[in-house]
Amino acid sequence: MRKINEECGVFGIFAPEKADVAHLTYYGLFALQHRGQESAGIVVNDDGVFRVHKDDGLVNDVFTPRIMETLGEGNMALGHVRYGTTGSKGVVNAQPIVVRHIKGTMALAHNGNLVNSYELREALEEEGSIFHTTSDTEVISYMITKERINACSIEEAISRALKKIKGAYSLIVMSPQKMIAVRDPNGFHPLCYGQRADGAYVIASESCALDSVGAKLIRDVLPGEMLVFTKGGVLSVKDNCDAAKHAMCVFEYIYFARPDSVLDGYSVHEARRKAGEFLAEEYKVDADVVIGVPDSGSDAALGYAKRSGIPYGVGLIKNKYIGRTFIAPGQKSRENLVRIKLNAVPASVAGKRVIMVDDSIVRGTTSGPIVKLLRDAGAKEVHMMVAAPPFLNPCFYGTDIDSKENLIACKHTVREIADIIGVDSLGYLNPKYLPYLAGDGKKGFCTACFDGKYPTEVPSEIRKNKFESKITEKE
Amino acid sequence: MRKINEECGVFGIFAPEKADVAHLTYYGLFALQHRGQESAGIVVNDDGVFRVHKDDGLVNDVFTPRIMETLGEGNMALGHVRYGTTGSKGVVNAQPIVVRHIKGTMALAHNGNLVNSYELREALEEEGSIFHTTSDTEVISYMITKERINACSIEEAISRALKKIKGAYSLIVMSPQKMIAVRDPNGFHPLCYGQRADGAYVIASESCALDSVGAKLIRDVLPGEMLVFTKGGVLSVKDNCDAAKHAMCVFEYIYFARPDSVLDGYSVHEARRKAGEFLAEEYKVDADVVIGVPDSGSDAALGYAKRSGIPYGVGLIKNKYIGRTFIAPGQKSRENLVRIKLNAVPASVAGKRVIMVDDSIVRGTTSGPIVKLLRDAGAKEVHMMVAAPPFLNPCFYGTDIDSKENLIACKHTVREIADIIGVDSLGYLNPKYLPYLAGDGKKGFCTACFDGKYPTEVPSEIRKNKFESKITEKE
Amino acid sequence: MRKINEECGVFGIFAPEKADVAHLTYYGLFALQHRGQESAGIVVNDDGVFRVHKDDGLVNDVFTPRIMETLGEGNMALGHVRYGTTGSKGVVNAQPIVVRHIKGTMALAHNGNLVNSYELREALEEEGSIFHTTSDTEVISYMITKERINACSIEEAISRALKKIKGAYSLIVMSPQKMIAVRDPNGFHPLCYGQRADGAYVIASESCALDSVGAKLIRDVLPGEMLVFTKGGVLSVKDNCDAAKHAMCVFEYIYFARPDSVLDGYSVHEARRKAGEFLAEEYKVDADVVIGVPDSGSDAALGYAKRSGIPYGVGLIKNKYIGRTFIAPGQKSRENLVRIKLNAVPASVAGKRVIMVDDSIVRGTTSGPIVKLLRDAGAKEVHMMVAAPPFLNPCFYGTDIDSKENLIACKHTVREIADIIGVDSLGYLNPKYLPYLAGDGKKGFCTACFDGKYPTEVPSEIRKNKFESKITEKE
Amino acid sequence: MRKINEECGVFGIFAPEKADVAHLTYYGLFALQHRGQESAGIVVNDDGVFRVHKDDGLVNDVFTPRIMETLGEGNMALGHVRYGTTGSKGVVNAQPIVVRHIKGTMALAHNGNLVNSYELREALEEEGSIFHTTSDTEVISYMITKERINACSIEEAISRALKKIKGAYSLIVMSPQKMIAVRDPNGFHPLCYGQRADGAYVIASESCALDSVGAKLIRDVLPGEMLVFTKGGVLSVKDNCDAAKHAMCVFEYIYFARPDSVLDGYSVHEARRKAGEFLAEEYKVDADVVIGVPDSGSDAALGYAKRSGIPYGVGLIKNKYIGRTFIAPGQKSRENLVRIKLNAVPASVAGKRVIMVDDSIVRGTTSGPIVKLLRDAGAKEVHMMVAAPPFLNPCFYGTDIDSKENLIACKHTVREIADIIGVDSLGYLNPKYLPYLAGDGKKGFCTACFDGKYPTEVPSEIRKNKFESKITEKE
Repeated sequence: MRKINEECGVFGIFAPEKADVAHLTYYGLFALQHRGQESAGIVVNDDGVFRVHKDDGLVNDVFTPRIMETLGEGNMALGHVRYGTTGSKGVVNAQPIVVRHIKGTMALAHNGNLVNSYELREALEEEGSIFHTTSDTEVISYMITKERINACSIEEAISRALKKIKGAYSLIVMSPQKMIAVRDPNGFHPLCYGQRADGAYVIASESCALDSVGAKLIRDVLPGEMLVFTKGGVLSVKDNCDAAKHAMCVFEYIYFARPDSVLDGYSVHEARRKAGEFLAEEYKVDADVVIGVPDSGSDAALGYAKRSGIPYGVGLIKNKYIGRTFIAPGQKSRENLVRIKLNAVPASVAGKRVIMVDDSIVRGTTSGPIVKLLRDAGAKEVHMMVAAPPFLNPCFYGTDIDSKENLIACKHTVREIADIIGVDSLGYLNPKYLPYLAGDGKKGFCTACFDGKYPTEVPSEIRKNKFESKITEKE
Repeated sequence: MRKINEECGVFGIFAPEKADVAHLTYYGLFALQHRGQESAGIVVNDDGVFRVHKDDGLVNDVFTPRIMETLGEGNMALGHVRYGTTGSKGVVNAQPIVVRHIKGTMALAHNGNLVNSYELREALEEEGSIFHTTSDTEVISYMITKERINACSIEEAISRALKKIKGAYSLIVMSPQKMIAVRDPNGFHPLCYGQRADGAYVIASESCALDSVGAKLIRDVLPGEMLVFTKGGVLSVKDNCDAAKHAMCVFEYIYFARPDSVLDGYSVHEARRKAGEFLAEEYKVDADVVIGVPDSGSDAALGYAKRSGIPYGVGLIKNKYIGRTFIAPGQKSRENLVRIKLNAVPASVAGKRVIMVDDSIVRGTTSGPIVKLLRDAGAKEVHMMVAAPPFLNPCFYGTDIDSKENLIACKHTVREIADIIGVDSLGYLNPKYLPYLAGDGKKGFCTACFDGKYPTEVPSEIRKNKFESKITEKE
Repeated sequence: MRKINEECGVFGIFAPEKADVAHLTYYGLFALQHRGQESAGIVVNDDGVFRVHKDDGLVNDVFTPRIMETLGEGNMALGHVRYGTTGSKGVVNAQPIVVRHIKGTMALAHNGNLVNSYELREALEEEGSIFHTTSDTEVISYMITKERINACSIEEAISRALKKIKGAYSLIVMSPQKMIAVRDPNGFHPLCYGQRADGAYVIASESCALDSVGAKLIRDVLPGEMLVFTKGGVLSVKDNCDAAKHAMCVFEYIYFARPDSVLDGYSVHEARRKAGEFLAEEYKVDADVVIGVPDSGSDAALGYAKRSGIPYGVGLIKNKYIGRTFIAPGQKSRENLVRIKLNAVPASVAGKRVIMVDDSIVRGTTSGPIVKLLRDAGAKEVHMMVAAPPFLNPCFYGTDIDSKENLIACKHTVREIADIIGVDSLGYLNPKYLPYLAGDGKKGFCTACFDGKYPTEVPSEIRKNKFESKITEKE
Repeated sequence: MRKINEECGVFGIFAPEKADVAHLTYYGLFALQHRGQESAGIVVNDDGVFRVHKDDGLVNDVFTPRIMETLGEGNMALGHVRYGTTGSKGVVNAQPIVVRHIKGTMALAHNGNLVNSYELREALEEEGSIFHTTSDTEVISYMITKERINACSIEEAISRALKKIKGAYSLIVMSPQKMIAVRDPNGFHPLCYGQRADGAYVIASESCALDSVGAKLIRDVLPGEMLVFTKGGVLSVKDNCDAAKHAMCVFEYIYFARPDSVLDGYSVHEARRKAGEFLAEEYKVDADVVIGVPDSGSDAALGYAKRSGIPYGVGLIKNKYIGRTFIAPGQKSRENLVRIKLNAVPASVAGKRVIMVDDSIVRGTTSGPIVKLLRDAGAKEVHMMVAAPPFLNPCFYGTDIDSKENLIACKHTVREIADIIGVDSLGYLNPKYLPYLAGDGKKGFCTACFDGKYPTEVPSEIRKNKFESKITEKE
């Protein structure tokens, strides 16, 4: 059983009085669905009584009208969508998790990954703690609970616990009376909050979820900040803030987040356009049309087209029914799956020299068939522009970058990759441009997957392996 | 129970030998899913033995791996996706229909609508015929069966039957040994065929379905043509062809078909771009950005941007998980549904004069909330361009244009509509441009929903009402 | 595709005014579930508007609360449960069937099997009729519809049609205004009617269904009788009655019907007790305990015990969760399925000479493992008594007696069978007692499956084969 | 959220080598389905790797063929079926629970209820422990884990932990290499073990589960005994055994267990027969027939009939499709639910004086309608015999006896109850006979629900309330 690295979405709402918080959380999670399609969960807090439902599946499948009815109304709710890797399947790892402890009940929803969870877990186990899941969220629950014994409030317990926790966390904790949102000092993953016209506060991974429930964005939760929502209002605790450490994951802008979201003040759509412009700056290609690979390549393609002066066109159409739920129904006639998902628009590419822009290349296995689609539709030349640098390093902060042995850029030169996927030329975004995608270049970003510069210490392989081997240890 | 008007998709495959035709049909239907989301069906013909499965739902839901296994292999298969209106729900109306008659078994899949079905049905009933469905396809089955008694072949029976049938039909009939594709003399709806590298012939409503199974488009079935696929090859019968009558539904180009399809030789994507260009020609607006309403407004927006010189931008993002399966989970907090589906990109529209391009306006109820999204995101002005003329008349050929009382253009002037949806200006496509969307203006199109010029006689209201009242008649 | 031979259950309700007839039909079908577990259907007649739902599965699975809601209220309803053989799977064959014809709409639910359906179907096909199903019910629909053209009422049309139909039918027809129940002149299968305190008439295959909806049994529909239920009351038409032809299926008493039902005036439970008594009369065995094989062997075991004076005991327990829905989950560990369903009670059989009574032996494959259970639990001797004679002939009237090659009694002597299943002695019911199970021996029964004396002409093999071969004929 | 009192079934298998233990556990749980229908779970131990699936529902619904496949093979497996009360719904409380702790992984399946769980839980919480469920099983997991830190083996840890645990537990623990079965010193609930021909050891709540997988019963786990199954064989630890304390729940014999099970050496079927005989001894009634209320009243009815000399008859038939899954589909026509489940056999009761035997009376709400069924079917007199004494006290050991305010015997005299349910006379089993149902009267039983004599100290109301109130405490 391997440790779960996951990209997730969190959503919380704190209403001034009893309201339909379950449905609002549903809509918020639906807007964050792109951050996790493995499982979904909602906990409604009805004046101290917690009602929870979570299951594997998409938000719209997990929360049927009948289930929504059982959740009922409340004054607070907490929701989570999870992207899990193969090893972590099973509803047991679904979030939010709800635990009962010495001072009552607590629900937690977490996006991120701790770098010292092995050590923390080991220490907890030595005291006799038991774990139902393999998730960091359970470790965090324990850490908070241990501090809660002597702390005079839940926020004090969280504050103390976080001093011992290292890594990436955009976390929302719901107690019977309070909702607390915290973001790690590096601010690896986004977290923002806003307010609805009815006074309800809304906290979410991305601003698009605020929009979906009609909440106005107030601001992002600052890296290192803790916000405490109570009947009395919102309290900000900034003990842990240190602007020098800011290191938002740059891949949130490039791929994870929705283009209509604004993260730490910068538009995701704009960041992608700029990536396209930087590519056009660096790679001059003589071509007739610039097209994007749906969905996320289109923004960068528009930027490339604008800067290069080559017309933008729609060269590839994605079947809009494909979703994440598409199951290829059988083995016998393994039709080219790319052909099921995408199709070329001959009118846009036939007889033309095409610049195809995609967000990134991971394994390099899907780019080839896409290029073939374009050539079959009559493209004379295909040049590929990639709106991210080559992936070279693992991520320890909660995103599921493939292992080194699968990353094509770890094994091949750019020239070789161009040959493998069959393009006439290939250009990756120069890493030097990364700080300029969202900001003026002075803001810090985590770019470790591209350049190996980790903003924190990272788990030693020895400890990690020790932990993992224990899972299947024999008595 | 009202008569079903439906837009549908048909797909047939005729393989040289036993093959995995069920899966190929699955992929073909999946590519045609946009033409019908109500029900899906596949009939496999395994050397004269017909195995069928059909049910309400999307292709990917209806055809589970277990179901696909029961369909098995065969040398032919026929598939159908159906868009049904409220009154026609129920698996009984799902297609293809399979009937046993004097000379064996026959399966039919049909896209279109007959204009003389009431009369035909009445005559059949007077002879003692019984009907299990309310669909035209069952009427056609009877007409063919009656002729089959004395005809020397199934194709002769079809040919004779079609002489009595009036209206729109893109029809595929599968007999134990043959597959026959026919298109009505007006060619209201598209139908084309192609061939795979393995020799299998493929017939489909749109070329995108051919692409999805790796078949090369040979050509469209001609209006009035009958194609007979047998082991011996393909036979074309053109007794019924009359170029003077050509009247392809122009709304197939504007809205129904997929942009990557090529219908009767013209690219759907290009037709939409052209609509945008014609709009730019007619309406000069001083603006900063041109955006499309996803999905189908984007193509026309690109055309408008190109011709007008105003930059194209991405101003609205559609939640890609919305699908057709999205069920708003409850009534309590009827959040603005438009806000769940779409969101504005502030970076693209804030402080700008925006031209918003959409494919059409039917009831006019969704445009207003979309405009509000843009204004909330900071748009200074919003001008709306519609890539179709106003809807003014009902369709009798198989598309489900809303009834007159619901069509906003039947009740309001353009100025009034602009006020209702809250835009600074509003421009509809001038009907004079319709013949130029796909072709040089010499080809005939059906534009009846816009201008009331029906290419055939249409059902008299008296007969129609008489028929419908009978359904609930008392004995 | 083979012809469907099926045992089924029918249920109809005719209320004096709009009422919750769907739920009452649900309860009635639930009481008749033992007569058919393959599919279930209900048609509600709401003042001439027919709402229908039918699907494969058990009543409780097919009719979810949501589905029941869509059926709504009405003044009449018709229901059906079907037992289908492998070849007839598929919701297309589910009943009731609803057809639209020249004079309106009609729903039919049928239990039985026609002996001249091949001829009737052939004649209909020669006139151009098409068939959606392989069921006799569709043939009957056509026959009635053809007569309806010139008949002055639905009951006249039914009456005329039935003159041409031969075989077994317990049939309920629902028109917009009337409900008509008919039973074939031989009265092969049961059909009775009664009335609820609220005045609603209820028609059902067995009286247990009347009990379940609180209706008092009035009497059985007479063989050959037609009952017409209208707002004006109940009309009996007895043109077709002929007491000389009475031939109720004796196996209804032995196995099919529920023991709490009363058929044609005789208790099913009593008939089974009597079978046990007759066995005790004929076979004197020195033993310590008489046990029954659950469920239907217990009644006969009680009779045997009473007549023989040997104590009755509970020797076998059936797992009450086994249902018809039990699916053995995998192939790897094919545990003895009999052991999953049944278990011996050691206290009842250990060290004892056991008489085990079962209702019948068909293939003889399950009796052996049951005997082994008893021996493993310590039984010293096991003697088997069978409450029916040996099966030797096929049934043409709607019950699915296995084919001759599978009937153990067609291939082995009683002595051989005793050895095969491992009992110390084996006794079958002597056929001479059959007329005395339900009555004084003067009433006629169909005992063809035991003695080959068919009460009607039966289908010639030649015609039958001709028909079946046509299904897969090549054009 | 109230504390869960539950009756459950546990099943474990320890195979000498890799085998299809998942399917065997499936069959075992299916045999124990009557002990719990709320949820089901299986954990397969494949050489230290634990694969788990559990969900709400019946065994046959939870474990689909696809799920069984994912469980795969292993050398051990542990299973559980749970009967939960309304408050405890939710898959989070499903068992077995799997926890990771300092020395690896452990799975637990538990039947019973601790009487000091509040105190244990409180102490654990004070040390910072968190709880995901409200079940005692999680408390036990912690107790074992805490001891595991310093214990040299899992069995030592269990042994130490159990010294602190009070109440009822029939528990199976599975570690990577061992399976340990323990039963509390009172032996409140049954637990036995046996062996299959292939050498695999099987542990189960009842012997019927051993029968279902072909295992031969070796003996019951003794009250207070711990059995350790390892590759080396079976080790019995009897430190905790004290014959003086034996107090098997007598209601296991009367109602819970399956009649084909043998518990602590006594046949359940025989115990019920004897209850009937004791009733006949005490209550002489002049009557014509003795009938049982299915399912569990029949055994006692046979005993009554035998001792009294009045003939036994089948007077009530239960619809065998009712299962636990029956959902009454709607509210409109709340037909008498008893009539849906049961029906009278007129031939057995009409015109007769009937003695009706049932296993027990709890609320007294269903007996009345059953009596009415018999009277409607013509019974002249109805006398009711109850094979248990009146319920007067709550159970703290894991069975869900209704609360005092709902127990009819707490509020009414026997005479009043007879009037309420409409019988001519009513007799309860005299408590003095209880020790003789299973044994010679010298064996100890827990009869607390009848006589209030609790074999252990019981939870003080004060502590219990304190705990429960904390669940919804405000911070």
